[in-house]
Parts: sequence; C-alpha cells; structure tokens
Amino acid sequence: MAKIQTIGILTSGGDAPGMNAAIRAVTRAGICNGFKVKGIFRGYDGLINDEVQPFTTENVSGIIRDGGTILRTARSKEFMTPEGREKAFQTIKKEEIDALVVIGGNGSLTGARDFAREYDLCCIGLPGTIDNDLYGTDSTIGYDTTLNTIVECVDRIRDTAQSHERIFFVEVMGRDAGFLAQNSAIASGAEAAIIPEDSTDVDQLAQFMERGIRKSKRSCIVIVSESPKCGALYYADRVRKEFPGYDVRVSILGHLQRGGRPSAHDRILASRTGVGAVQAIMQGQRNIMVGIRNNEIVYVPLSEAIRSDKPFDRGLITVLDELSI
Amino acid sequence: MAKIQTIGILTSGGDAPGMNAAIRAVTRAGICNGFKVKGIFRGYDGLINDEVQPFTTENVSGIIRDGGTILRTARSKEFMTPEGREKAFQTIKKEEIDALVVIGGNGSLTGARDFAREYDLCCIGLPGTIDNDLYGTDSTIGYDTTLNTIVECVDRIRDTAQSHERIFFVEVMGRDAGFLAQNSAIASGAEAAIIPEDSTDVDQLAQFMERGIRKSKRSCIVIVSESPKCGALYYADRVRKEFPGYDVRVSILGHLQRGGRPSAHDRILASRTGVGAVQAIMQGQRNIMVGIRNNEIVYVPLSEAIRSDKPFDRGLITVLDELSI
Amino acid sequence: MAKIQTIGILTSGGDAPGMNAAIRAVTRAGICNGFKVKGIFRGYDGLINDEVQPFTTENVSGIIRDGGTILRTARSKEFMTPEGREKAFQTIKKEEIDALVVIGGNGSLTGARDFAREYDLCCIGLPGTIDNDLYGTDSTIGYDTTLNTIVECVDRIRDTAQSHERIFFVEVMGRDAGFLAQNSAIASGAEAAIIPEDSTDVDQLAQFMERGIRKSKRSCIVIVSESPKCGALYYADRVRKEFPGYDVRVSILGHLQRGGRPSAHDRILASRTGVGAVQAIMQGQRNIMVGIRNNEIVYVPLSEAIRSDKPFDRGLITVLDELSI
Amino acid sequence: MAKIQTIGILTSGGDAPGMNAAIRAVTRAGICNGFKVKGIFRGYDGLINDEVQPFTTENVSGIIRDGGTILRTARSKEFMTPEGREKAFQTIKKEEIDALVVIGGNGSLTGARDFAREYDLCCIGLPGTIDNDLYGTDSTIGYDTTLNTIVECVDRIRDTAQSHERIFFVEVMGRDAGFLAQNSAIASGAEAAIIPEDSTDVDQLAQFMERGIRKSKRSCIVIVSESPKCGALYYADRVRKEFPGYDVRVSILGHLQRGGRPSAHDRILASRTGVGAVQAIMQGQRNIMVGIRNNEIVYVPLSEAIRSDKPFDRGLITVLDELSI
Repeated sequence: MAKIQTIGILTSGGDAPGMNAAIRAVTRAGICNGFKVKGIFRGYDGLINDEVQPFTTENVSGIIRDGGTILRTARSKEFMTPEGREKAFQTIKKEEIDALVVIGGNGSLTGARDFAREYDLCCIGLPGTIDNDLYGTDSTIGYDTTLNTIVECVDRIRDTAQSHERIFFVEVMGRDAGFLAQNSAIASGAEAAIIPEDSTDVDQLAQFMERGIRKSKRSCIVIVSESPKCGALYYADRVRKEFPGYDVRVSILGHLQRGGRPSAHDRILASRTGVGAVQAIMQGQRNIMVGIRNNEIVYVPLSEAIRSDKPFDRGLITVLDELSI
Repeated sequence: MAKIQTIGILTSGGDAPGMNAAIRAVTRAGICNGFKVKGIFRGYDGLINDEVQPFTTENVSGIIRDGGTILRTARSKEFMTPEGREKAFQTIKKEEIDALVVIGGNGSLTGARDFAREYDLCCIGLPGTIDNDLYGTDSTIGYDTTLNTIVECVDRIRDTAQSHERIFFVEVMGRDAGFLAQNSAIASGAEAAIIPEDSTDVDQLAQFMERGIRKSKRSCIVIVSESPKCGALYYADRVRKEFPGYDVRVSILGHLQRGGRPSAHDRILASRTGVGAVQAIMQGQRNIMVGIRNNEIVYVPLSEAIRSDKPFDRGLITVLDELSI
Repeated sequence: MAKIQTIGILTSGGDAPGMNAAIRAVTRAGICNGFKVKGIFRGYDGLINDEVQPFTTENVSGIIRDGGTILRTARSKEFMTPEGREKAFQTIKKEEIDALVVIGGNGSLTGARDFAREYDLCCIGLPGTIDNDLYGTDSTIGYDTTLNTIVECVDRIRDTAQSHERIFFVEVMGRDAGFLAQNSAIASGAEAAIIPEDSTDVDQLAQFMERGIRKSKRSCIVIVSESPKCGALYYADRVRKEFPGYDVRVSILGHLQRGGRPSAHDRILASRTGVGAVQAIMQGQRNIMVGIRNNEIVYVPLSEAIRSDKPFDRGLITVLDELSI
Repeated sequence: MAKIQTIGILTSGGDAPGMNAAIRAVTRAGICNGFKVKGIFRGYDGLINDEVQPFTTENVSGIIRDGGTILRTARSKEFMTPEGREKAFQTIKKEEIDALVVIGGNGSLTGARDFAREYDLCCIGLPGTIDNDLYGTDSTIGYDTTLNTIVECVDRIRDTAQSHERIFFVEVMGRDAGFLAQNSAIASGAEAAIIPEDSTDVDQLAQFMERGIRKSKRSCIVIVSESPKCGALYYADRVRKEFPGYDVRVSILGHLQRGGRPSAHDRILASRTGVGAVQAIMQGQRNIMVGIRNNEIVYVPLSEAIRSDKPFDRGLITVLDELSI
C-alpha cells in the first residue's frame, strides 16, 4: 500500500448537528499532519459525479458552531449498485484520494464497508447520526444536540399541557432505535415512552393515563418513536377510543429535530473523533469507525459498528417508571 | 358604584407565554395599591364553578419567567350561554369581586365585554394571545415569544433544507391573522409566506420555487399560516403535482409554538399592562383593554379591541419580496 | 445632483446583533431596485483606506441569523479629523459611491451627519446599537437581542442567588442610557435597577435590600448600568459596608451582551429599515436615519436622531417599584 | 443495622444545574420503593439546625427542568468541626433518618465520608458539581450544562471578537480542574486554553497570538481557568506588555455559569444516579457515590470518589492544538 497523501471527506445520509465540526476537525488535523484534504459534495453522489474540491483550513473556518453540513448530504441510490461504486472509484483515482473519511450513520457506513471491500481502499467512518444506533461508541455525533432539542420542545409543550390539562402524544425521530424517545422522556419528565424495543398494549396506555391524571399532576405527556404504523397519531386515536373524555393532542416534532447549533458535547465528540480519524490513518488503520467509549478514543471495525443490535439498556425503562409515579 | 376593593384575575383561551408575568403584575400592583386579589382558575369555567382562591405576593413569586398560566385556562362553552354567565355572576357576588381582569385573546375579551354589559361589572382586558390580532395595541402578550420560537425552529429546518437541498413548507399558527407567518418569514429569511390576508396562486408558487433554487441558494422555505383546507400539506401537494422533481417536505410546528419562557419583550409588556390594569381600575376606567402603543400605555374600549379588522401592513409583503431575490 | 447608481454600506462603532440582517437588507433591496452595492470594511477606517468590495446577493446569503458584522467595525479616530474625512471622500469618489448607508449608534451617525455636511453626500443612517439611545425610533437594531441576553443571564444568576440566598449586583451595558438596565430589571423580576437617569442613595439601597430579604423572597438582584465610577462593584462595596452580614456578589456581564443570534424583533427591524433605506434613497431623501415608530417606517433627520435627550419613561420606575414588593 | 425506612436528602456546596432533577429522582424512587423521604434545607447547616421537612412526590413536581436547588445549599463551616457533626447527628436521630443522600462536590462528599465514619451512618453521595472533578464517574451533574453555557457565551463573544478583530481572554470556572476550560475551548473553537494541569509560558502566549492573527483568522480567543493569581486579567496584562499593539479584552463569565435549565444529559444523569442511590440503599450499600461509567451505573467508595487526582486526558491538549492551526 502506497503512502497516504490525500484524504477525502464526505457526509452522507440524514444531516446531523456536529457534522461540520467533524469536517473541520478532519480537515485541520489532516493539514496539520501534512496531508492534502479534499471535500466531496453531496455524499456518495458527489463521489460518483466528481464533485470534489481541495480544502484549506479557511474552508472550515467558523463552521464548528453551524448545524447541517457544508458538504451537503444525500442518500445515494446509485452507490448501492456495483456500477455506482465503480464510478465512485474512478473519481477516487482521478482525484488521487488515498483515504476516504465518511461521516454518517448506519447505511452510510455500510456503504463505506462495502466500498472498502471491493476496491481495497482505506475507509474511515465517523459516527454521524442523531439516532445513536451505531455499535461501539457511547454516543454518535448529533444525538446529544437532538436530545436537547426534543427536551426543549417538550418543555414548551408541557406549559400548554398543564395550562389546558391535556394528554399529549409527542412523536420524535428514531424509527429503529428508542434512544431518543426513552431518554428524552426521562429528561423531560414525561409520563411514558413508547419505543420500538418494547411493546405497548392497552393496559399500559391506561396506566400511563392514570399516572398523568392523578391528583398531583395536571397533564400527561407520552413520547413516541416515529413509526409508519404505530406513531403518535395511532396511540392518540386508541386513547380517544378506549378512554373517552380526555382532551388528547398530538405533536409531531419532525424535521426541526435535525438542525441547530451543535451542543458542546457533540462539538467535542466530533472534534475528538475527527482528530482520531487522522491519527488512525497515520497508524495504518483501515475500515474502522472512530468512536469514544468510556471517554477514550476507540477504533471499531466498520462491520462491528453497523451491527444491528446496539443494546438498549432496559434499566432506563425502570428509571422512567419509578420517576413517573 | 361602590368602591373597588377586590380584583379577580383569570386567564382564558389558548395559553400564551407572558400570561404568568401578567398575573404577577396585576397581583403585585393590586396588593401594592391596597386591593385584595383573587385568582380564578380554569378561565370562565372556574368563575362559573367558583374555583377561586385569595392571592398574596407569594402566589406569584418566581413565575415571571414561566410559560403557560398558573391559573390554567380553558375555552368555556358554558360562559357563552346566558345561564353560564348568570352562574359566573353569582360567583362574582359571593367572592365579592369588584373588578375582573381577563387575560386572553379575541374570544375571551368578547366574553368579557358581553359579561360587563349584562351585569354592570368593571371588566379590564389584557391582550394575552400569540396571534397579535387585537386592535389598539402594538403587540399582544405572547406574540413576540412565539415569533422567536418559530424563527428558532425555521433556523433549524434551514440547516436540513440546505444540507439536503429541499423545499420546505412550514406551517405556523395564526388561522385568521398572518402576523406570525409574515413576520417569521422575514425574520428567518424564508423565500415566501402564505397568509390569510393574501391569496396565493400557482404562478406565485412557481415564483417562490424559482427564488429558492436559483444558483446562489440551495433550498427554499415557505411559511404557511395554518388553515383547515389550505395549510402546508395542501401547498406541498400542489407543488409536487405542478413542479415534479423537487424534494418537498412539510413541517407543522404545532403546539410547541405556545409554550416556553417568555421573551424580555413579552415579560415587559405583561408587566407594564398588568400595572396599567390596576391603575385603570383606580382611575375608574371600565370595560377597556390595556395595551401599549408607541411605547405608551393606552386604554382601548373592549368593543374596539376585538374589532376584526386589525390592519395588516402590506409593506411587509414588499419587504419579504425584495429580500428573497 | 446626479442620479444615484451605487450604494456603499458600512457598519461602525460597537457591533450589535442584527447588523448583518441590515447589511443583507440594504444589499438585496438595493440590487432588487437596480443599484450597484459596495461593502466597505472596518467602518470609517475602511472608507479612509479604500477597503471596498462589490457586493452581490451571494455576499449576504445566510447572514440574517448571524451576530456581529461581516463588514467588521471600528471606532475610527482618523475620521474625526478633517484630514480623515477628506481621505474618506477620495474613496467615495474613486469607488463612485453615490449614497452611503451607515449602520451604527450615536457616534457613528454624528460622523455621518458631519461627513454629509462637508461633502454634499447622501448619507442614510440605520440605528444599529444595543443602547437604544437614538431619538425618533421606538427601538434600535440590537437592543432587543441584548435585552434578551441579559434576561437569560439574570435568570441563571437568579438560580444561584436563590439557592445560596445571596444579594447580587449585576452590571449591564448602557453607560449613558438606562434602557437596558431598567427594562432588564423589569423583565427578570429584579428587585431594583440603578440607572444614569436616576440617582440612588443609601436609603434606597436599604430599601432594595429589604425588598429582597423579606420573608417571601430568598434573594435580591439589583441591575446596575455600567459606569466608570459607580458600577456594580461600587454599590456592592457600599452595601457590604453599610449593611454587613449579607452575602453580596457581583457579576459583570461584559462583552457577551453584544453578540449572539439576533432576535426575531431585531431581524425584522433591520430588514424593514434596510429596505426603507433603499426606498429613502429612491425618494431623494438625504441625511436621515430610518427608524420605526408605532410600527411604521419613519425618516428622522440625522441631527434629530443623535439628540442626546431621548426621553426615559419614568413610568418604568414605578412599574419596577410596584412589582418588587 | 436496622432496616432503612427513611431517606434524608440534602444539597451542599456550590449549586449545580441538575441538582433539582436529582432531588426529584431520589424522592420519587424512594417513595416508589416504600421509603419515607425527608428534605433537609441549606446543606449541612440545615442538618445541624434541624431544617427538615417530609417530602411527597408533589414537593418535587415540575422541578426537573429548574436550575439551582429547591433545598437551597451552603458551604457549612460548622459541619467541619466535630461539634457541628455531633449536632447534625442529633437531627438524624430525632428525624429518624436512616440513610442520608448528599448531592454535592468534592468538599461535600468529603464531609459525608467523615460523617459516615464517625457515626456509623449510611451515606450515599451523588456527584453534583459543575467542576467534573470527582473520580469514578464519567461526568458530574451540572458539568454538561455549564459547558454548554460557556460555549454559548464564547459563541457570542466570538461575534464581537471577529467584528472588532480583538484578542479575548475569557475566564471560566474550575479553579482546580481544567475540564471546563479545555473542553469549552475545543467546543467553541478557541485558539487556546490555559488550565491548572498545564503551565503556560510567554512563548506559548506568543504562539496563541500568532494562531489567532494569522491571515485566515480575524480574532483570538483564549479560555482561562479561574485562578486567584493567574486568571484572565493576569494573562491579558502580560500580552499587553509583551505584545503591544493588540486590542486585548477580558471577559470573566462568573456566576452565570452555575444556573440555568439543566441540559438533557444532566437531567438524565441526575435521574439515573438518583434512582441508583435508592437501589444502592436497598442493596445495603453504604458510603459510596453513585456514578455512571461507560453508560452504566457504578458505585464508587466515597474515599475513592474524592481522590484529588482525577486524570486529565492530555490528548485533549493535542486536539485543541491541531484544530487551532
């Protein structure tokens, strides 16, 4: 393997707050350590279509505090095909990119792993997703910011719920992982969370209602992970049917959960793993994701990072149950 | 008319940030000037059902910064009937309330006016609504906070819109008044606003799209006033039909617009008009709303305050048009 | 007078949140109406040293939500001399600037007035200062944001003051004008404000202390306008001397009051007055400041805007007094 | 040892955001598991003076989102004496408190350890301090919120620093521990941090200046841990002396760093460790601090938690150095 001289960076999949901080960290640590750095726009699509630009430290000046991604992002269908990846590799060769840093979630890192396997390329992943569903890192870039955004929104909804004495079902992101729903429920003092890792039946709903309306509480808030069939609207309807007489409302937080200035935690996580990515390249690491566990930088093989079974701590369910009495 | 000794306070209709600051101001200024103060819970319903409690300065300690209303609120159907108002007046007599301060929006102040007419009562209104649709005051308690909340949300959505290069239709409150939509569009740098005061046809939609996708801009955000028929979903569907090929998304901000810590502006407005309400009572004013115009306290007859034709400054449409190029 | 074709923009004096929104508005409205626009960097110094750059709509893209000023700013000593202004005018001629828009406070607009008098130039001022001390406009660009920032800070300090049962003197900006101190005191529920418009003697201090320590309140917060001699440190020392036994602390908010994302109010004010500046130029107005009074755009002669006697509403002192009981 | 029936809770030392969430969690989990709960006011002083009150779930309703501590707090000198602790133990006996939960930092937990040793009492500590200087837990309650508050403040100061092209020394809390300074420097994109764990000489200062003024950057921000002798004022003076010509400013953030609504992270940490404290009591644990390591609840002996040598990750210095180029 020839010496690595040029690092390419791209962001892929849903945008997450802190992606810019990660781009900045890889760029600056790369340049600081003697590499050339190139920014690849619009995710894997930009790799396929050669949307590549040399980056200096000035390209990333001031972006540490901005949400979104200056490299833009996309969910590339073409890159899922062998033909797409073939085109992408042509760009890699043409642009003389020796190592590719991919900032993204599960799907994006799966793409990186497959690409690295097919073309003997050095791919380094950074965990950039609000869903926190990557294995081997305590948290992912964007998760903490989104958690705070949700909690701020629920704080606001609580004001109205109490003033009007209403039941609210609040739908948050996390189709396949209940981290956001469960933890935002704990943090906002919600009465319950409905998450994909746990089933919720009519008896439990009755119990949630009861918690909320007991004399000392004036309202009830249930956080629900988004779901094509069983989202907040579904549960609100069931409650209206099974327990008529309540004033039940739904709030779907939607896209505003993705944006915003990254929290201190996410900026630090992005900065540390970004520097870690460059160090990994210098150490000859390949096809790993850089994460932080127990406050230390770790290198996790991409195949392990994307394992679908990131464990959900069921103790969190107990915490919420005991605190909702 | 006998000397006024006891002031009753209630909040009615949709909750608005700053209502607590207003309750605090009326209570403290009342007590400071020698009145007894009583809090009435759950709006007019609480007046009908005698949910009344004497208030000291301690009841309102620390609430200036809290959203919602410690007096809770409701939209009372019973108070719309003569029988309901008759019961309410029984409470007024029983509790020896000489002056009633009502903090609420158009419907609530209409109720106050009717009640005052029927029972020869001193009713003072405070403009408590996020909609800003009361006549005779430069702004209403809650409007500024909600405007800031919307702008924060749109700032977040902008991050995602730019990163993914998407068209967003963002629905905000204000069914009958476009103040929130038009002004949040100006403040967030949105490409357009769709408001009840102005019609929007297919040609304009085309123009909005064009503004957004022109080379120097990577996304397009249109703010839409909520509407039973023609909300954000309606316009998103039309754009998908008429201009296929765009990635169009909808975000309905919903209930989170009502809550949250009131802005400095709303706390000051609530404090000043709350003190103004007590001064009005001392001056023998009756059946007026206390507002602020041109930075000065004004007394507006309730019948005038609830006029439906608060003028909308069409210059704001020009401002948005010129700044969206 | 020849037809105006090119508009120059500069920001001057202390930076204020919303200056960028104003730069954006003048630039876009200018271009929209057929003018060329040039940005002048570093205030009047940049005019003297010809730091000028043509602006397109792209130069101001995305800046509406950013604090500070992309044009940078300075307090120019050289511009106070006839020689400095002579050099500045050379740049005006060289760059073919026909109208100069100055965004700044009292000193900056005084400079604009003098410059316009000496060189028969069209100067338009925008009220850009956190101090709110310009005559003829209800508020100035930056004032509302700073007020909110101060109130947020005092909300935080209140948590500590109550938890530890302490007296806090919080020093805020506004050396010559008590708007920030008086209004932030009302909005944060502080016990008192010490402002340049009003004298504060030892008896009043005793009264402030008493308010705070009365049984129903656990702490006391006094907001103090900054002052070379009689700032927060001075009053804290006096209290320590005259009323020993209290746990007295000082917090000087300092520079963090200037920055931050502008509030919705300031973005709208900047956008509307920025568009108003271009309209003023088109109407042949000269040497005026664009402000907003009673929710309408007004043109105020520069000489009037910089009058030193912007009236302070003493009713605000009563409001704070009655609400601090 | 008799069966534990009653749990007493107190907060001690400097207040930290999330203390209320911890009080709520211990109270609710305690009651949920069959214990009586008593709140002790004003820290150890309240224990000495028997300021104790039975707590129900209602006492802690709605406080999860409030900064400060409803139990108030103090730094007790009397408790440092054997006589003071003797009096405190009399209250413990009189109030029939079987287990004492102390929420506080290093000094407070040292007091708890000594008290437990002398009187054979079950003491459980919760890590409540913004300084993050307790051993055995990944972070302490309040640290994350304060970090975010500092970063928000530095974001604001950055706006002014760039607009005026100034050098800023920003002083933050953390007299004995550089966690806040170092991590807020990374998160805010500051040019350097001066921390107690590392010495800073004149050559380094020169290097910091150089970083900031290099062409691509318009300002320089250095974060300094507070220090009786070598705080921000000291370094600003040195720079003024050694490198004349710079516009150097100082901002001392001070007390506002302690307050404010706790972040999601701190609310969750407080909730989980609060529930963990009750579980520890049920398991017969004594004289331990409940922390979270690697996302799991851990019990750390009090003597270990207060060890003075919580390791500082020097890799963070490298991260800041590489990202400040």
